[in-house]
Amino acid sequence: MTLRLYDLCGADRSLRFSPHCWRARMAIAHKGLAFETVPTAFTEIAAIGDGVARSVPVLNDNGVIVGDSFDIAIYLDDAYRELPPLFGHDGLIAAARLILNWANATIHPILARMMIKDIHDVLAPADQVYFRKSREKRLGKILEEAQTGLDANQDALAKALTPARMTLGHHDWLGGAQPLYTDYILFGSLFWLVAVTGRLPLPENDAVAVWFDRCLDLHGGLARTAKRAA
Amino acid sequence: MTLRLYDLCGADRSLRFSPHCWRARMAIAHKGLAFETVPTAFTEIAAIGDGVARSVPVLNDNGVIVGDSFDIAIYLDDAYRELPPLFGHDGLIAAARLILNWANATIHPILARMMIKDIHDVLAPADQVYFRKSREKRLGKILEEAQTGLDANQDALAKALTPARMTLGHHDWLGGAQPLYTDYILFGSLFWLVAVTGRLPLPENDAVAVWFDRCLDLHGGLARTAKRAA
Repeated sequence: MTLRLYDLCGADRSLRFSPHCWRARMAIAHKGLAFETVPTAFTEIAAIGDGVARSVPVLNDNGVIVGDSFDIAIYLDDAYRELPPLFGHDGLIAAARLILNWANATIHPILARMMIKDIHDVLAPADQVYFRKSREKRLGKILEEAQTGLDANQDALAKALTPARMTLGHHDWLGGAQPLYTDYILFGSLFWLVAVTGRLPLPENDAVAVWFDRCLDLHGGLARTAKRAA
Repeated sequence: MTLRLYDLCGADRSLRFSPHCWRARMAIAHKGLAFETVPTAFTEIAAIGDGVARSVPVLNDNGVIVGDSFDIAIYLDDAYRELPPLFGHDGLIAAARLILNWANATIHPILARMMIKDIHDVLAPADQVYFRKSREKRLGKILEEAQTGLDANQDALAKALTPARMTLGHHDWLGGAQPLYTDYILFGSLFWLVAVTGRLPLPENDAVAVWFDRCLDLHGGLARTAKRAA
């Protein structure tokens, strides 16, 4: 049967922008598994399944429930060993976890400064209330102050992407000769920005921009054809 | 025959502190290969072999010359496939390269602020002249201003190590269940600090500090028994 992925959505329920959900989506597509997504607003997460989910993505694989995008990738490799690996090596799981935490800790704060108010604006009204309250508490400032925009932060983004850029000077993909889960980690981060703002503010010939464009074509153009807010 | 590794040294030629050379040293030891090191001052690098080396480490494996610590690791896995792998997977080579560039771009500038003048002080006089000139040009300030010390930068170091700390919350090593080259990348960075200053300014129970201490015991205590400046 088809896998079901609970996927964060905006007021336009066809708009899917969560970096974590995109990592899961690309991972399922990489395995070649059929799946459907269930559009899920922030304020609908508590109603998923038996109500234990605190975040999305959540995968329902015929009754097996797995949350957290990284755990979903590990689950997929374990459950479907005969399909193309996302990791394929224990040492790569650990290295990918470091890269995940690098992206989340280093790239995401810059992306948040670029678009946190824009994210708010694409949400449904009930989600906007939740999002503003939780994010303003976390950031210690109102969204309108926290967002300083794409232009003001594009140099910081380009600099923070240095480790990926240098890697792509030696390899076609962050996975080496072919895309692996390490690609989907950073792709999810950057597609978050593109889904919400419509732009990736990097020079066209930047190795990261070139790689990102190739990622858009993966798995039948899954991300290239996806809805964008702008 | 024994491998020969050209290894950066201080005025005390038994003091070896280069993060890049330590990565190579741990990599050779990981393979279980016999090796000797050739203490090499900065101003002696140009005289290595046929004079093409611009930096150390340089490995001489019975006439095969390999420079650059990452290339040395790749070479060792290629040349000695029957010995324990440093990577063991093409995707891990690419991921390790991202981690290498993360460490070099993110951790090393903080370590430099902690000890750049202290590094100068452990060098031989001719090296001190070279080091001051090249580093002050790169940094745009004199060493005495560039070094703000361990205490002033310990919070920045702890924060920058977040991706490694979160990984070590799930795995014994950055290589997963056993140490791999990904461990030696970050270990080299941090042993640079310990060799020069004698201290790793992290809380004792920090997962990175605990892992670092276990790294000191690897390969017969290679690093634990090594000379330190302070």
